[in-house]
Amino acid sequence: MPDILHRVGIKSPSPNDTYKALTTIEGLSKWWTEETQGETKADGVLQFRFGPNGGFDMQVLELDPTKWVLWQVIDGPEEWIGTRISFELKQEGDFTIVLFKHQGWKEPVEFMHHCSTKWGVFLMSLKSLIETGKGAPHPNDVLIDNWK
Amino acid sequence: MPDILHRVGIKSPSPNDTYKALTTIEGLSKWWTEETQGETKADGVLQFRFGPNGGFDMQVLELDPTKWVLWQVIDGPEEWIGTRISFELKQEGDFTIVLFKHQGWKEPVEFMHHCSTKWGVFLMSLKSLIETGKGAPHPNDVLIDNWK
Repeated sequence: MPDILHRVGIKSPSPNDTYKALTTIEGLSKWWTEETQGETKADGVLQFRFGPNGGFDMQVLELDPTKWVLWQVIDGPEEWIGTRISFELKQEGDFTIVLFKHQGWKEPVEFMHHCSTKWGVFLMSLKSLIETGKGAPHPNDVLIDNWK
Repeated sequence: MPDILHRVGIKSPSPNDTYKALTTIEGLSKWWTEETQGETKADGVLQFRFGPNGGFDMQVLELDPTKWVLWQVIDGPEEWIGTRISFELKQEGDFTIVLFKHQGWKEPVEFMHHCSTKWGVFLMSLKSLIETGKGAPHPNDVLIDNWK
């Protein structure tokens, strides 16, 4: 089964700030979408919205502080439902490395190509948030194609 | 086998300029790496270099003007050798859509995660080149992590 994979390195002395940006409403709303709500603790459900384009509900399956975040998509576009999104963090010198996976896609549909590029752009927004204090979350995200 | 997939949409009235940027030394050197040399026609070999980090030699396997470009990696990092890189172009209204695939990876190694994000960033450089006249090729590319 095809997966979306990414790796970004964030200039930061420890994974603490990156972990916080993945596990708090304030953090998530500063790099992915300003329309973020819900419960960030394990078993909680997060709602990510993108204006008229709808969005995703994610259940928080696993949290290991400063190391690991795993979500499962429980509502959203049909292709996303049941897929899992993970962030593995580790420190390499001056960089917090984020290994990202979005797994469980049934088919490598065109929408998956779009989501792959878009995840890359949002992870660069996360990097920018930690390094400069400013990310590019929806509705001010970087547009990549005619699907936005 | 895992693949790297991306989709970008370039504001352009036809795929002609994008196709040219994928099939001429001048075009390739304006979005991927300024150190591009070789033969761009079918069966030709392209050399892409990235300063001290080495680079890739690609054989041009297939060309279908304004629609399709397929390369095979014949030299470079071990994980890349034998893999295939394709660009499928199509016009949707004001956008030239690029469907990108880098296929044939044996394992989803950490380097593949890096390459996935980096390809996304370079495809955004291609988009910028066509839309604004200015891309961000190596050595002025956007750095994504400690592997550059």
